[in-house]
Amino acid sequence: MGKRQRITLRQDQRLAGSEGLDRRLFLKRGLVLGSVAALGPSFKVHAEPDREAFPTWMREPGRTFSNYGQPSPHEKHAIRWISANPLAEGNGVSWTPLHDLAGMITPNSLHFERHHNGVPAIDPQQHRLQIDGLVRKPLIFSLQALLRYPRVSRLCFIECGGNSNAGWRPRPIQSRIGYFHGLVSCSEWTGVPLSLLLQEAGIDARAGWLIAEGADAAGISVSLPLAKALDDVIVALYQNGERIRPENGYPMRLVVPGWEGIVNVKWLRRLKLVSEPLMSRYETAKYTDLLPNGKARQFSFQMEAKSLITYPSPGFDLPEHGLYEIRGIAWSGAGRISRVDVSVDGGESWTAAELQGPVLPACLTRFRLPWRWRGQQAILLSRAVDESGYVQPTRQSLIEARGEHGYYHYNAMVSWQVSVKGWVSHVYV
Amino acid sequence: MGKRQRITLRQDQRLAGSEGLDRRLFLKRGLVLGSVAALGPSFKVHAEPDREAFPTWMREPGRTFSNYGQPSPHEKHAIRWISANPLAEGNGVSWTPLHDLAGMITPNSLHFERHHNGVPAIDPQQHRLQIDGLVRKPLIFSLQALLRYPRVSRLCFIECGGNSNAGWRPRPIQSRIGYFHGLVSCSEWTGVPLSLLLQEAGIDARAGWLIAEGADAAGISVSLPLAKALDDVIVALYQNGERIRPENGYPMRLVVPGWEGIVNVKWLRRLKLVSEPLMSRYETAKYTDLLPNGKARQFSFQMEAKSLITYPSPGFDLPEHGLYEIRGIAWSGAGRISRVDVSVDGGESWTAAELQGPVLPACLTRFRLPWRWRGQQAILLSRAVDESGYVQPTRQSLIEARGEHGYYHYNAMVSWQVSVKGWVSHVYV
Repeated sequence: MGKRQRITLRQDQRLAGSEGLDRRLFLKRGLVLGSVAALGPSFKVHAEPDREAFPTWMREPGRTFSNYGQPSPHEKHAIRWISANPLAEGNGVSWTPLHDLAGMITPNSLHFERHHNGVPAIDPQQHRLQIDGLVRKPLIFSLQALLRYPRVSRLCFIECGGNSNAGWRPRPIQSRIGYFHGLVSCSEWTGVPLSLLLQEAGIDARAGWLIAEGADAAGISVSLPLAKALDDVIVALYQNGERIRPENGYPMRLVVPGWEGIVNVKWLRRLKLVSEPLMSRYETAKYTDLLPNGKARQFSFQMEAKSLITYPSPGFDLPEHGLYEIRGIAWSGAGRISRVDVSVDGGESWTAAELQGPVLPACLTRFRLPWRWRGQQAILLSRAVDESGYVQPTRQSLIEARGEHGYYHYNAMVSWQVSVKGWVSHVYV
Repeated sequence: MGKRQRITLRQDQRLAGSEGLDRRLFLKRGLVLGSVAALGPSFKVHAEPDREAFPTWMREPGRTFSNYGQPSPHEKHAIRWISANPLAEGNGVSWTPLHDLAGMITPNSLHFERHHNGVPAIDPQQHRLQIDGLVRKPLIFSLQALLRYPRVSRLCFIECGGNSNAGWRPRPIQSRIGYFHGLVSCSEWTGVPLSLLLQEAGIDARAGWLIAEGADAAGISVSLPLAKALDDVIVALYQNGERIRPENGYPMRLVVPGWEGIVNVKWLRRLKLVSEPLMSRYETAKYTDLLPNGKARQFSFQMEAKSLITYPSPGFDLPEHGLYEIRGIAWSGAGRISRVDVSVDGGESWTAAELQGPVLPACLTRFRLPWRWRGQQAILLSRAVDESGYVQPTRQSLIEARGEHGYYHYNAMVSWQVSVKGWVSHVYV
């Protein structure tokens, strides 16, 4: 893939079909030969099953009920991988194992973590949320008080501004996708519309920003434009049905749909209305992008469109020639994903993938496309297009725009190479 | 509420507004007086916070990262309540604590359980799915083989056919709603379209039904019409993103959107195509409804529209006069919920509630409506209407149709009485 301009496909533009990619391939030619032949001789089809041969779990009563269920002991590998500072073990991240997951929802136990000073053990009875600054009437809310307020739900992703930052390295890293791109998770958050609380406090006409502060020992403070706060932000109390988990802000956090993780302040304790942003560490030294011209992108809150192929991906080598379903996820802070294109030839030709509904704004969206692999070397890529018309950039065009020394906000296309032996590795094209 | 005919409101029919119910009430008059005044004198608003007074969790590093998260120790009450047979402890149910939850998604750890002989400890490497009977080519699938097939997701509820059956009792039971109606849960299930597997096996023209069998020690077998199997049924491998939990069918289950729980066969091991249904215990002695005329409703698979007010509900007494948000859930196996009406006067007048989007077919749908309680005795009811035009019946009309000795498929409106003291109890109206 040579040097090329930023892609600007129109929604209605026809894509060239690619060799081996076909949406109806599974219907035309099933997997049966590949899968069933591989089962071995011990599993014959009986006209009636042989009861003697039943496994123990069909002959003995199973275990009884449980108050709070846990995964199968056979799934112990599906965990968050932890990258913490050995000198300050509450500072670091844990990754959502995207390679082990399916669907749109991230289970609460596997939602990524980013902490600056660990997970505070907050007593929900003592915790308070304070709204002050440029308001007519400062307010303090207990959790009990907030639980009486109207509730709305937001199905949305939260992504760390530093997610995928290994993409900035000069050589492609080789790791499972969860440990490369797993600082993004998607949940149904339920809580109180922030606009309602701010309206109760009475917004002073001079207020243009909101400083949000967490109750952890890192004392995270960030600035948010008031317009967004009045739009779709919520003070979330629930995560996928149950109360928010400790590592996700128990007993309450901001959820700022589509905007980078740091402003979705966890353990929320204070919202101060001000006229100008705070210029805190997290919006000056961190989460900003120093550009080649010496200027810095700051307050680039909205996460831009992104996609990646989760299968095949490094760690999932292809066992044989035949049919595979290329699968992946796409998301955009600007709204809905409108299309995801897939290439198996390094970007020379593209085919539109099928999107799993419901396709929701600022939500993970699954895509899929059947592919017949005939043993050739292949380079797999996906490119997301969102409803604003934005097209996910190539790595090269992202570097042209931002320089080679980026750290945050990496959203370029991701490429996997499939070797003639079926081995899958990360490459730059 | 006197004797009345089955309600047949048109979609566009205007509802009489009710005293104290108003969708915009929270915007007009916030909760601030009720909530903040109740906080006590120890929480004053400071121009700048007093750092000395910060709680311990803001002064000491928090705990570090975890591989698989768990709820806050302060939320230990939000568990499944177990009702098992003391003589056969794997036979019974555990209930989703609906009174503790919010939103549409039920977390996996709290999905209701219904087992007939416990949870089998299946080895996923040994487990096989067999498709046979009236097929051209019987097939056997390992889990590994199924994982290569195309995947789709279904966001849908699963409800036990026996859910809410305490409603058939002559006197209203008094319990938390989760222990009365909590045999319904809602998840994003991801797996292989069953139609694809059946097409691979080749369907014989004589086949009209499918017998599905589980790999537990109860040997559950049920019959499903082939038309539904070819429509939207999946062999689910994932639940809310991660692999299915043991108590929900690990490593695979049928998900039959909108149809009663028993046919969503867990621990799925065999699908046999046949010309006539099996007439198993679970479709003759159980999960059928003996009608007053001596005939029985059988194979009434689709769960009919239902709703209930989750707040206020028994256990949530109202602490003071003032504004409350009436909240609840509605669902229908026939498709989307098109409207939920709420009454605070025992069904004399109704107001349409707001529905939380996205409103999806065969999914839990949250509704809400602000209510100003002035201290009067009130009777709260909700009634769901689905996109087929079906209207949730009154208890009286359900009994007129089905008789007084029902056990399954109870979907009548549920009534809560609020006393002048704010106590909430279950009543029949």
